[in-house]
Amino acid sequence: MTTDLDGLKGVIEATLARLLPDHSPIAPDLVAAMRYATLSGGKRLRPMLVCAACTGVGGRLAHALAPACAVEFVHAYSLVHDDLPAMDDDDLRHGVPSNHVRFGEATAILAGDALQALAFQTLAQAPDLSDPVRLRTLTLLTDAVGWRGMVGGQSFDLAAEARALAQEELAALHGAKTGALIRAAVQIGAVVGDPDLPAATFDILGAFGTRLGLAFQVIDDVLDVTASTAELGKPAGSDLLAEKSTYPKLLGVDGARALADRLLAEALDLLGQAGLQNDWLAQLAHRGVRRAY
Amino acid sequence: MTTDLDGLKGVIEATLARLLPDHSPIAPDLVAAMRYATLSGGKRLRPMLVCAACTGVGGRLAHALAPACAVEFVHAYSLVHDDLPAMDDDDLRHGVPSNHVRFGEATAILAGDALQALAFQTLAQAPDLSDPVRLRTLTLLTDAVGWRGMVGGQSFDLAAEARALAQEELAALHGAKTGALIRAAVQIGAVVGDPDLPAATFDILGAFGTRLGLAFQVIDDVLDVTASTAELGKPAGSDLLAEKSTYPKLLGVDGARALADRLLAEALDLLGQAGLQNDWLAQLAHRGVRRAY
Repeated sequence: MTTDLDGLKGVIEATLARLLPDHSPIAPDLVAAMRYATLSGGKRLRPMLVCAACTGVGGRLAHALAPACAVEFVHAYSLVHDDLPAMDDDDLRHGVPSNHVRFGEATAILAGDALQALAFQTLAQAPDLSDPVRLRTLTLLTDAVGWRGMVGGQSFDLAAEARALAQEELAALHGAKTGALIRAAVQIGAVVGDPDLPAATFDILGAFGTRLGLAFQVIDDVLDVTASTAELGKPAGSDLLAEKSTYPKLLGVDGARALADRLLAEALDLLGQAGLQNDWLAQLAHRGVRRAY
Repeated sequence: MTTDLDGLKGVIEATLARLLPDHSPIAPDLVAAMRYATLSGGKRLRPMLVCAACTGVGGRLAHALAPACAVEFVHAYSLVHDDLPAMDDDDLRHGVPSNHVRFGEATAILAGDALQALAFQTLAQAPDLSDPVRLRTLTLLTDAVGWRGMVGGQSFDLAAEARALAQEELAALHGAKTGALIRAAVQIGAVVGDPDLPAATFDILGAFGTRLGLAFQVIDDVLDVTASTAELGKPAGSDLLAEKSTYPKLLGVDGARALADRLLAEALDLLGQAGLQNDWLAQLAHRGVRRAY
């Protein structure tokens, strides 16, 4: 198998394509919308984190691929639902029309629903893992995406529109909305790679994921005001239009960049304490935070 | 614990209330919408089927409660999403305003999403079950609700509106949309009640669930034209308005009732072959199909 991160992205995308349904006698549009939601692009940061954590703690890359795809299915479903008119109402995603623009709202809602079920089915049936490991990954992922995690954060985000949040509230919002899934990706990879991983290492990797998730979001906020729609593949300036609280508003663009750099440094320091067997997590942290465009 | 079906309904509803989150510092509306979606009424047919199958094959009722609630969380999420304006656009459910009418569309979409995650988390952490049983229930439920099952059926249903379906197509539609979850409820209960259940009995109970699910849907179609909105707790005549294909349209009201009776008889005959230790599944089949109003 490949041993560099660019090769890894291709392996993940091939596995996503294989694990997705490719036809249905009763619901061809649904299957097309599920594939479109997942295969139309994206950085694949979360599934690469799963693979990086797994191999970093000494596990086999092949064992991480199904769990990595499960995490990406959840991410893909969340983007489809977030883009809906009743939510963030975004027409563009990964440089192509959003799912509901392409397939209609009803099919987009259902495609998101089906991708969530597929994610958990993929974990329940992940090859080469023991039953306890499968269940640990299921607990980590369901907790990260449910009312306490990603969905709770999106709810908070919608309720907080047009209200100025303090920095602590903004961190809580993004810790749930973006951070929980990124942290879970790292922890799922670690558990898959080494079922007997010491609790201290598991916690350190979780703290790494928390820093990385927040740094990633801070940079997302910065890019929303500094990058173009063509560079982002989604509408630039949408946070401003939605009157969302953002890090550039709270701290200025330079202050937000400095915060992201500090979080990245903390994250890399934590990685140093974890004693990993390769530098993939470090490389991914750099990529996620120092996005050029 | 209780030993009659009416008492069982109360036990299930108390367990649902306990397993649902009751507050969130970041997303109070989301939690309120999740509770409203689940606790505002309903026949509780599916969770009762889980409990009935579990005890019928000799298992303990206490072991069935968490899996039963997981199935009901999925059912509750599906009703919230089905009622959305982009889907069936129904304003009334269980005699009260639909989730999106009460909480807004965005929160309703998110409440459904969070209920789905909660369902799978509940199975992954179900007390008193072995890891292999937990994973079997997860595979049964994810398969029943995903693109091949409930969500696929709902997609088919929306695509088929205003088109006249043949009886075979209608059976395929409802086999996925309604039948898959009802069949899974029975099979999940059976697996929980007896992890070493003979495959033949598992298959017989699945066939029972298939007949019951279809009979249940035929009667739902009949009631849509014969019962009042007050009796149904949801808008009567909505199938007609949506120009849906229904059994009364295909077979007439009497013909549809006769079909439901024949399916019920077949279901009860299958139950006789399964050699169960109580008559709860038979009672529930009667209740589900011979709904009086």
